[in-house]
Amino acid sequence: MTAAPALTLHHHPHSRSAGARVMLEELGVDYRIELVNLHAGEQRRPEFLALNPLGKLPTLVDGDTVVTEQVAIYLHLADRFPEAGLAPAIGDSARGSYLRWMVYYASCFEPAVVDRAQKHEPAEPMVSPYRDFDSMLAALEAQLARGPWMLGDRFSAADVLWGTALAWTTQFGLVPKSEVIERYIERAKARPGFQRAAAKDAELLATA
Amino acid sequence: MTAAPALTLHHHPHSRSAGARVMLEELGVDYRIELVNLHAGEQRRPEFLALNPLGKLPTLVDGDTVVTEQVAIYLHLADRFPEAGLAPAIGDSARGSYLRWMVYYASCFEPAVVDRAQKHEPAEPMVSPYRDFDSMLAALEAQLARGPWMLGDRFSAADVLWGTALAWTTQFGLVPKSEVIERYIERAKARPGFQRAAAKDAELLATA
Ligand SMILES: N[C@@H](CCC(=O)N[C@@H](CS)C(=O)NCC(=O)O)C(=O)O
Ligand SMILES: N[C@@H](CCC(=O)N[C@@H](CS)C(=O)NCC(=O)O)C(=O)O
Repeated sequence: MTAAPALTLHHHPHSRSAGARVMLEELGVDYRIELVNLHAGEQRRPEFLALNPLGKLPTLVDGDTVVTEQVAIYLHLADRFPEAGLAPAIGDSARGSYLRWMVYYASCFEPAVVDRAQKHEPAEPMVSPYRDFDSMLAALEAQLARGPWMLGDRFSAADVLWGTALAWTTQFGLVPKSEVIERYIERAKARPGFQRAAAKDAELLATA
Repeated sequence: MTAAPALTLHHHPHSRSAGARVMLEELGVDYRIELVNLHAGEQRRPEFLALNPLGKLPTLVDGDTVVTEQVAIYLHLADRFPEAGLAPAIGDSARGSYLRWMVYYASCFEPAVVDRAQKHEPAEPMVSPYRDFDSMLAALEAQLARGPWMLGDRFSAADVLWGTALAWTTQFGLVPKSEVIERYIERAKARPGFQRAAAKDAELLATA
């Protein structure tokens, strides 16, 4: 390919965009990285705020479209490149479950993890979107225990999301390790896309 | 139709499932309501926890598939019934934006609203998914100001979600009212699906 790739990921390896790069590697598509040095505050530059007014990574530019929010980026990319088979197609009986566990990350897991990191009790049941931390984690682990992947035998974008998320949250002690979770992270990290993304991110940091 | 509908919404009108019912009405599809009386604690019944271990509404059963999480339910339904035109199709240039603003509800809006309701300051920038409440709301309002709908001229599932969410959060004083938001809520409430859902919910509560 000589034309400029249509996909640009605004990225920093030490951020929630790490998994978005894994997605691009698992898809095997051509993309460009725009490093946003969060430590230097580059996410507050006007050019970047014009793309994403919250100044957040990941931010994906796909042609004329800006996609923010991790889960939206995964959903978008998986459907846009169906050849890679990273999402059950519309009409496939696994599609509903796929969407459930993709959104669960944003609607239950992150709120629970952030509250825990901040030492905030969950709100009362009508308000808290995730019930309580232990219930939220138990539901997730029950699904993972069916394994080897989130949707059973089939590796999908859900595993890019959850493999990445569980790796960093267990590493920072925000989520307790368990046998199920540790084996799952190992399987994810052994995937070619995870390995290529890790190597490229290391190179990016070394030369930045 | 004489066969039992494949879609069952576990629902209570005074809950986050209100908008899921609007979705079903906007789609014009056949569905069954299973009232879960949250005030009586019916969400803790073992049969219901078997579907959704967090004991949360909305919960949608579509044939053999259980879909939880508001945003997942909307995404699933909109794609499953493409004739209704409530989601830009895969490949449509509006798809990325659609996904962005659907997920923004779960990944930014709800965490910000819940923190505010709990009088919790947002976490530091690397942790907080939404920056701060005012930035989160300003980004949303800027998108709504393009109007009349979230994606411009085209009404979509994003407007079912946001029309419903902004109606209840402004009503409870969790989100400040503004001209842009009030006009948007009015437009949404005038839609036939919103009106049918409101009438059916009133009847459900009157006869429950
Ligand atoms: N709601 C966003 C959250 C993304 C996010 O908070 N990213 C962090 C890095 S992990 C960030 O860019 N922080 C920089 C800042 O807020 O200054 C999503 O779901 O993608
Ligand atoms: N993460 C869920 C949150 C749903 C939720 O919290 N629903 C509330 C009603 S608004 C509920 O069912 N609460 C009952 C309870 O927790 O006991 C979603 O996005 O749909």
